[in-house]
Amino acid sequence: MDNSYQRLEQFFSPRHIVVVGASTKNFWFSNAVMNSSSLGFDGTFYPVNPSAPEVAGIKAYKTIEALPDAPFDFGVVMVKAALVKDTIGRLLSLGIKNILLLTSGYAETGAQGRALQLELTQFCKENDIMLMGPNCLGFINPHSRSSVFVGGSVEGVPVPGGIAVVAQSGASSEILMSKLIGKGLGISIYSTTGNEAVLTAEDILEYLVNDADTKMITAFFEGFRDIAKLKSAAKAAASKSIPIIMVKVGRSSRGVNLASSHTGALAGDDAIIDSALRQFGIIRVDSIEEMIETASLFSRCRLPDGDGLCIYTLSGGLCGMYADLCEKYGINLPELSENTIERLKEILPEFAQPDNPLDVTGSGFQSGLDQVFDILLEENRISIIAPLCISPPGPDDIFSPRINSAFLRYSGSSKKTVVPIAFREVNAYALEFFKGLNIHVIEQPDIGFKALSHFINYAKYIRRLSS
Amino acid sequence: MDNSYQRLEQFFSPRHIVVVGASTKNFWFSNAVMNSSSLGFDGTFYPVNPSAPEVAGIKAYKTIEALPDAPFDFGVVMVKAALVKDTIGRLLSLGIKNILLLTSGYAETGAQGRALQLELTQFCKENDIMLMGPNCLGFINPHSRSSVFVGGSVEGVPVPGGIAVVAQSGASSEILMSKLIGKGLGISIYSTTGNEAVLTAEDILEYLVNDADTKMITAFFEGFRDIAKLKSAAKAAASKSIPIIMVKVGRSSRGVNLASSHTGALAGDDAIIDSALRQFGIIRVDSIEEMIETASLFSRCRLPDGDGLCIYTLSGGLCGMYADLCEKYGINLPELSENTIERLKEILPEFAQPDNPLDVTGSGFQSGLDQVFDILLEENRISIIAPLCISPPGPDDIFSPRINSAFLRYSGSSKKTVVPIAFREVNAYALEFFKGLNIHVIEQPDIGFKALSHFINYAKYIRRLSS
Repeated sequence: MDNSYQRLEQFFSPRHIVVVGASTKNFWFSNAVMNSSSLGFDGTFYPVNPSAPEVAGIKAYKTIEALPDAPFDFGVVMVKAALVKDTIGRLLSLGIKNILLLTSGYAETGAQGRALQLELTQFCKENDIMLMGPNCLGFINPHSRSSVFVGGSVEGVPVPGGIAVVAQSGASSEILMSKLIGKGLGISIYSTTGNEAVLTAEDILEYLVNDADTKMITAFFEGFRDIAKLKSAAKAAASKSIPIIMVKVGRSSRGVNLASSHTGALAGDDAIIDSALRQFGIIRVDSIEEMIETASLFSRCRLPDGDGLCIYTLSGGLCGMYADLCEKYGINLPELSENTIERLKEILPEFAQPDNPLDVTGSGFQSGLDQVFDILLEENRISIIAPLCISPPGPDDIFSPRINSAFLRYSGSSKKTVVPIAFREVNAYALEFFKGLNIHVIEQPDIGFKALSHFINYAKYIRRLSS
Repeated sequence: MDNSYQRLEQFFSPRHIVVVGASTKNFWFSNAVMNSSSLGFDGTFYPVNPSAPEVAGIKAYKTIEALPDAPFDFGVVMVKAALVKDTIGRLLSLGIKNILLLTSGYAETGAQGRALQLELTQFCKENDIMLMGPNCLGFINPHSRSSVFVGGSVEGVPVPGGIAVVAQSGASSEILMSKLIGKGLGISIYSTTGNEAVLTAEDILEYLVNDADTKMITAFFEGFRDIAKLKSAAKAAASKSIPIIMVKVGRSSRGVNLASSHTGALAGDDAIIDSALRQFGIIRVDSIEEMIETASLFSRCRLPDGDGLCIYTLSGGLCGMYADLCEKYGINLPELSENTIERLKEILPEFAQPDNPLDVTGSGFQSGLDQVFDILLEENRISIIAPLCISPPGPDDIFSPRINSAFLRYSGSSKKTVVPIAFREVNAYALEFFKGLNIHVIEQPDIGFKALSHFINYAKYIRRLSS
């Protein structure tokens, strides 16, 4: 089968879409229409329904043969499993070789379903049909403003950006998408693969690495079907510094069983998988929230040129807690050099004892943080600074700008990587404020430092590759 | 020194408060006044200031001797360290034996400061003075509507409730307080102890265990001063099922150093401390967010009568991820009994394969969840149910009530412990909705399951104690 970049590029940008089985009985078709129109889709849906004259407000056709003459480039199939092969055959006779199959009842249901799916795979390969599914939700391509996505749980509209999402599980990826959108992060392509009768998540990964819009890949895997392709895609990604952040279900034996039964993929021995992923430079995370935190960090911060982190904050208690979390996640907090300590002593209150993490003290933080930051910028032992950041509670706050100016002055162009840590709750105003400046702020130190450790380790991996 | 319950009860409910060193140069006094008035404090502040006729809008007195005749019951001291002893002596001559000392420059600054602090301790003990501080922020007592709290970073006003906060670190506890308030959790007493020249965090713990309002204690420790008292307080707490949830800084060697320098407490060897805390039944957490999640769970859910958890959700991918997180945190997901599986098969779609976690499938979740929940209520192998919960995006949503009725029908009185897991973002409306029902909802599965493991282990600890 032709699985080339061009072919998938075309697959992900449909314009004239036949939808067979479009029904008013479930929300799939109306979701697809709404999801597309919110993107500004300028193509056309052609629903096929044996009885309804229109579905979701769009004129419907009784049969595939009754469709008007049009340059069809995509077919969405949601008829019941027994009718699928015949339907795909009819679409093929219209020249449609790109298919999204939503129907379930295949490998996820047992032996009979597996046989049915195998037959489907065979049929598609023989006829050069590129098929996504069965048992998936489709995809969204914000850059081409096209989508065939039937899920109803993605909150907000994805804006075009650099983060690709590929997931075997539909619902999990909808949570992921909602959180990415909420975090103000842009999407290149969002794709769910389901049972992967033809197109696998590894195929999509390979494509995404070559996609000019994709700068980072987030992936939700339940099992792998092609370790060799995973490895080569990961290698290509690393060579372009495209991080792959992955939830791979199946750490627990129960997780393995569930993964197998859900999409029929091979979940495998987790220890082996874990070490393979590490070797491939893939960042494995335990949860969607860890994925989001990591993705935001990668999107908004420059990769550091070394491992050393220096934190400064206004309280000894926080310094201690941060130090413990850094140890938990293996983050290096180098001792500051004599020279830096001397310079800090000059500007901090007499009773401050400069260390790393640096307690600027409750008096010291009121002024002089610009100088603290500048001194740390010149400390060779560190590559990353995590400054105290006061979340602005509203537009009229005069206190937070004074504290935050220390790093905001550089507006992302300082010579070290900067990852501020919020003091005070990050309310809706502050969230929008930080989004507007496109800066990543650690709100929750535990997950924040875990993500930072991924970031630091990835930078190390890339430096090693290129040395 | 008289350190009895009655004495501390009086300490935490001041009404006629002399504030020596009340100044317009810093925000301490004005913060104290604002914090008190927001609670509805009906007592009086008497600021002493050698030059200003009033401070923060309140009439000031030039000297302690110039104060009017009044039933003073509390002194707040914020003069510089050199003047402290003399000031406390003068307050003593007014009959004031309860003192909050805010001044820093003691044990946290080195040998000289340590000597000064020792002298202070001596003086207080000789004169039966109960002193909180130095180098702390004071306390808030929402039940007695009184406070001498000079911090400016607690967001929102604490409502009276069952959660006590005791912290050696001021700033860290302000973050903790803001998050408790934001989460809708009520406070019994919030107290910061600083350098602990006289009153230690262990003293406060001991008091809180006997305080009728306190149902749970959250504690931020940098070091211990009295392990024997900690142990006896923990034992008394366990006998009353009052959980103690603690951040103890100093897991890392750097954390140990920082803790010592910050308040001068002994941080100690972490492995020993960790095992001692476990033995005492104290729940040790790594971060403030983990503490909040755990506190909310304890506040809002009944302790389970066994270990087994059953989760149900709408996606196999989520089931796998949840199973992995449960394994990570040692949570037991028992296999369901034959009978339960049969009963579930009857009501779920044909292709569903009942397991634990239970994937009710994308079709199955649309209806029948009431029955799913009821079947699980009768499963003897489990004591806790984590049902799928759809966050309502707004008041007009008709979808979420249908899904959530499964557990909301019982309004907290079901015979098993119920810990719903949110699908969809928990927006401001949903947050208030859940708060209004006083239910704990897991928003972030990683930290959510970690907190749940604390909860389950604590219940086991209590069961073992009482058997």
